Amino acid sequence: MTSSELARRLSTHDRLAVARAISRVENDREDAGALLRELAPKLGHAYRVGITGPPGAGKSTITSELTKLLRTQGKTVGILAVDPTSPFTGGALLGDRIRMQEVSMDPGVYVRSMATRGSLGGLSAKAKDAADVLDAAGFDFVLFETVGVGQSELDIAKAADTTVVVLVPESGDAVQAMKSGLMEIADFFVVNKSDREGSDQAVRALTTILTFRVTHREDEWIPPVIKAAASKNEGIDRVLAEIEKHRAHLLKTGKLALRRIERERERVHELVEIMLHTDFWTAERSAILERELIRISAHETTSFDVARELTKV
Amino acid sequence: MTSSELARRLSTHDRLAVARAISRVENDREDAGALLRELAPKLGHAYRVGITGPPGAGKSTITSELTKLLRTQGKTVGILAVDPTSPFTGGALLGDRIRMQEVSMDPGVYVRSMATRGSLGGLSAKAKDAADVLDAAGFDFVLFETVGVGQSELDIAKAADTTVVVLVPESGDAVQAMKSGLMEIADFFVVNKSDREGSDQAVRALTTILTFRVTHREDEWIPPVIKAAASKNEGIDRVLAEIEKHRAHLLKTGKLALRRIERERERVHELVEIMLHTDFWTAERSAILERELIRISAHETTSFDVARELTKV
Repeated sequence: MTSSELARRLSTHDRLAVARAISRVENDREDAGALLRELAPKLGHAYRVGITGPPGAGKSTITSELTKLLRTQGKTVGILAVDPTSPFTGGALLGDRIRMQEVSMDPGVYVRSMATRGSLGGLSAKAKDAADVLDAAGFDFVLFETVGVGQSELDIAKAADTTVVVLVPESGDAVQAMKSGLMEIADFFVVNKSDREGSDQAVRALTTILTFRVTHREDEWIPPVIKAAASKNEGIDRVLAEIEKHRAHLLKTGKLALRRIERERERVHELVEIMLHTDFWTAERSAILERELIRISAHETTSFDVARELTKV
Repeated sequence: MTSSELARRLSTHDRLAVARAISRVENDREDAGALLRELAPKLGHAYRVGITGPPGAGKSTITSELTKLLRTQGKTVGILAVDPTSPFTGGALLGDRIRMQEVSMDPGVYVRSMATRGSLGGLSAKAKDAADVLDAAGFDFVLFETVGVGQSELDIAKAADTTVVVLVPESGDAVQAMKSGLMEIADFFVVNKSDREGSDQAVRALTTILTFRVTHREDEWIPPVIKAAASKNEGIDRVLAEIEKHRAHLLKTGKLALRRIERERERVHELVEIMLHTDFWTAERSAILERELIRISAHETTSFDVARELTKV
């Protein structure tokens, strides 16, 4: 099927076309380019939400419960799961699996998991391509579920219009969030499993940290901290309300358009890196490297000089 | 001071020259290239050990206790700490700080911490450059202490001759190790804080997992799992014995030279990426990007086509 045929068939009702289009952007960069060119005029409808946090925080439960709630409002939902600990991709609890199965049977929902290992370099670019496919197909919401460990996963979460960071009450999670860069990307925090001990302290600790970051600009968004117990379906309505509040804020301040431009800027940067790398390692340059590695190990030259020489060829 | 003057002054006794040389490789890539060229003939003496693992596993305690033990054998030690949770770089416990202060007062030890935030792209390259400085200065051992979270930190640990992964007995750590890629880079494991409950089970679980990986080649190295309680100075002798055993294995099988060649191969790749990126974003290309971002947001073109166009300029 040509890219333009595939683009024409793409709709929330044609799961086969959606699956095929995502496989196409996953498998070949040039094919992806051709398809995305066809999809460009159809983009911009979907609202993109990133759901991230450390392993075991309950991201997939929040994702599935949020999806169910959106469905009761008649919204269609595309889910991209890039999380080795998620029920979409493997290591799941029985409850999670059943919950997900329910969700994925719904014709208004499309669920796709994307591999993490081995392809980290291009994964973030591919996840954004797949989100464009879902957007062009007409889904109202695209949810990225990614585990907040590693730069690539952070890049994906950051690519959303609204980024939700899910934590558990246990002390240490907030500290880890600060260290791992989750703090910078969060539009709001969900302290999940809030029936556990220490959830009020966790909310207070986070709120205190966040207060120090306020710059008192008038259009400033201060990331709220809300509580949920997703597996008991508590607080999911607050999660959705917060998403809508943040969306309204972005629209009112004109930040939504800016954020989407920044997203495309990072995407061009990322694609340029991939293309430069792919174009660079020709047979000739690879042969030079092999020859020079012998000289490096004999201490006759350095990796710096070899790299410099190669980039001049 | 010129690179050749600095290279001449460099020795384990001249801390100022060592500090200056590391600052030089940290701050400017071209200066780094010139200095490393001067240092090339002096390389190859130091044995490089990577010490990595999740936050809180006790890497810095192992690093300082191992250093003390090496000093009793008259060995000089250079330490590079790339770990936001380490006593070298900040968030430390009082005991860790005192321990580290003791070690760093010793004239046969040089301790340097390297920043993690903001410079992740080039950090791994810079840590390897700094290790070359310590090697050329004549240190017998270079210890990299890095927190095993994130690709850059894994790259650093992998750059060692022997890589030690430190875990705690708590269940889940072994599972995390598998997921985060620590399993692939470990030459041996230390289950630290072995006075805690569950340490024997943790050792057994790891050993079982590792058994499945054996390929029964004759020169195969099966990563051992040893126990330690570094803060009580228990098991540090076993850690050093394991390092020496692995070193002997690498020498006997010829793998040490191969491993060092692979390290330089990855280093050239890394430097090429950095150089391509730096050379690429000229004022002209940046201007094209700004212009095209407007067209992307009007859905008239795609990030893919813009990236393709830019790489053709």
